[in-house]
Amino acid sequence: MNKARMEAFSDGVLAIIITIMVLEIKAPHDTDLNALTKLAPVGLSYVLSFIYVGIYWNNHHHMMQTVKNVDGKILWANLHLLFWLSLIPFTTAWLGQNHLTALPLALYGFVLLMAAFAYWLLQTLIIREHGKTAVLARAIGKDWKGKASPFLYLSAIVSSFFIEWLAIAIYIGVALIWLVPDKRIEAKFYNNED
Amino acid sequence: MNKARMEAFSDGVLAIIITIMVLEIKAPHDTDLNALTKLAPVGLSYVLSFIYVGIYWNNHHHMMQTVKNVDGKILWANLHLLFWLSLIPFTTAWLGQNHLTALPLALYGFVLLMAAFAYWLLQTLIIREHGKTAVLARAIGKDWKGKASPFLYLSAIVSSFFIEWLAIAIYIGVALIWLVPDKRIEAKFYNNED
Amino acid sequence: MNKARMEAFSDGVLAIIITIMVLEIKAPHDTDLNALTKLAPVGLSYVLSFIYVGIYWNNHHHMMQTVKNVDGKILWANLHLLFWLSLIPFTTAWLGQNHLTALPLALYGFVLLMAAFAYWLLQTLIIREHGKTAVLARAIGKDWKGKASPFLYLSAIVSSFFIEWLAIAIYIGVALIWLVPDKRIEAKFYNNED
Amino acid sequence: MNKARMEAFSDGVLAIIITIMVLEIKAPHDTDLNALTKLAPVGLSYVLSFIYVGIYWNNHHHMMQTVKNVDGKILWANLHLLFWLSLIPFTTAWLGQNHLTALPLALYGFVLLMAAFAYWLLQTLIIREHGKTAVLARAIGKDWKGKASPFLYLSAIVSSFFIEWLAIAIYIGVALIWLVPDKRIEAKFYNNED
Repeated sequence: MNKARMEAFSDGVLAIIITIMVLEIKAPHDTDLNALTKLAPVGLSYVLSFIYVGIYWNNHHHMMQTVKNVDGKILWANLHLLFWLSLIPFTTAWLGQNHLTALPLALYGFVLLMAAFAYWLLQTLIIREHGKTAVLARAIGKDWKGKASPFLYLSAIVSSFFIEWLAIAIYIGVALIWLVPDKRIEAKFYNNED
Repeated sequence: MNKARMEAFSDGVLAIIITIMVLEIKAPHDTDLNALTKLAPVGLSYVLSFIYVGIYWNNHHHMMQTVKNVDGKILWANLHLLFWLSLIPFTTAWLGQNHLTALPLALYGFVLLMAAFAYWLLQTLIIREHGKTAVLARAIGKDWKGKASPFLYLSAIVSSFFIEWLAIAIYIGVALIWLVPDKRIEAKFYNNED
Repeated sequence: MNKARMEAFSDGVLAIIITIMVLEIKAPHDTDLNALTKLAPVGLSYVLSFIYVGIYWNNHHHMMQTVKNVDGKILWANLHLLFWLSLIPFTTAWLGQNHLTALPLALYGFVLLMAAFAYWLLQTLIIREHGKTAVLARAIGKDWKGKASPFLYLSAIVSSFFIEWLAIAIYIGVALIWLVPDKRIEAKFYNNED
Repeated sequence: MNKARMEAFSDGVLAIIITIMVLEIKAPHDTDLNALTKLAPVGLSYVLSFIYVGIYWNNHHHMMQTVKNVDGKILWANLHLLFWLSLIPFTTAWLGQNHLTALPLALYGFVLLMAAFAYWLLQTLIIREHGKTAVLARAIGKDWKGKASPFLYLSAIVSSFFIEWLAIAIYIGVALIWLVPDKRIEAKFYNNED
């Protein structure tokens, strides 16, 4: 089974997820600066979620390059990942309307946590299919980002109910960790292509 | 005529269908647990429909791999299938707002029934084009899932007007039947590709 | 310049156009049969527009198969076509809410007329680029459908202000004319591929 | 790393951006000519933004044709560009509702300015990756359009607060500048492909 359509479908879903979030930034009726500053929380939530979906697209892109075959299990593990990511526009909208409120903050983290789990599951199935010595298995290596993220999400979820700003700080922090390029991994990908 | 654009177009439409359903889960104004639990029916409808569209995408993906040529009839049979699937976001939204109500339950099943019919029509046209001995014809084999589903949808539609929970149970049941991988078929696909 | 991305972009836009129209079919608050029958005009407009966009996708698919090179002019002629098609969800929504009313009926026809003109322009540019003897020029042949449609749209626009049902009948009629496969043309396409 | 998925993802996002803007043109409840003329500002904003997104897609298409490899930096520079473009439906909606008002006009220009900066950044990274002698570097040449646009956007932003119609005139003007084909550049692209 070839992977091209799975990539095309994932690209489509991720492109839609990242773009429909902007529909939540409703054009205000007023036209003064106040109307615009009121949109700041919604706008910031959008930026954060845009980066998260961008990270997932980026990592998905990298991972799929190492994949040769996909089977039914991998197709469904991929749909499972897309399911959790598809909830991000909803959690983003709720967070944007209620910044620094416990439940929206916690739910935002919960969906990120489940997406991280779904990504790990997909990755595990791909490695199993291709063998421990495959490019992906070696490229991931110690994968400290992948291992640390769930714990960070969990602590952010807990923080939501006690110190709201800490939860937001953690979400921003995790995004930054992933944004910083991981020279070592990219090098391995490149070397392999030679 | 080549099948690449038909696949790309179908992937696009299916990706949009599966993603815009999430727009129906409106962010509530309140931020307490009660506001979230009120969303449960909408959320569960979303999960169910996500799985159904995922199943169709999956099966469509498998079926198209066996196809060599597409003609005008197949293009329109494919659009006909996409038409019925495009109604799923609507029936999902109506069902989500009115769980356990007769008409939304019945309509949900009716659209699934018509999509199943459209899929069967597309499949039949493809087999006719490629011959009885083609991969698809052999892979489908007895196709008990495809034959049983319409009857199950029909009984769910009838149940909607008498025992509402039974209709939902049947919709969940059919989804589960399709989710369970069909080893035998996948094997045939693989063998053929050798 | 290669045509693959122009096809991919057009597929994306057409897939979105055909799917977001369904967002106009709002789930009613009531759950009785009356609520559903009230949706009939909206639903019928959706069916009609779905078929029109399907026809355009189908014809676009056929036409692009004959194309070897695209230049800036062709890219913009294609965007011009997509612009008019992108207005169909709007005219469909307005028509659906106000069936058998003059202005929505006329505007629906006007957008179809402009799309037909944009399609003709794109086709003309492609033929000029590839020469009169090219596949497309020969395949189109007398092109009576393409020549008759604008006049039919025009008469529907005029009818909108006098005999509303005639306008709708013409829109349905033109769709049917295009739906009926054109054996002769498809044959030419096939022969050429040998 | 291959560029195909980055192109596919960009096509998807641009296709969605260009199409969801039409959702802002809400079907009016009335059906007289007055209801339609009231939509003129929204419609004109849509036309303008459609052209801008079309220009970006067109230029992106041209630029990517000269690209051989993409790395993490280029992927993120591309996402950064898509981010600013994704705000266009929002600024278009706000502008459409409040034509000739200072802040919506200025914000419209600000997002265009940031998109122009993001495009320049992406272009710079691609040239650095491929070398000064690469097709893109030569094709861009003096790039007077690219250099003039930011200054024109800036003057439009300033005009927004003093002479509103001048701001709109500048936005239309810049779009026209880009619409006019640049024979010299296209020729270079073509020659290179020989």
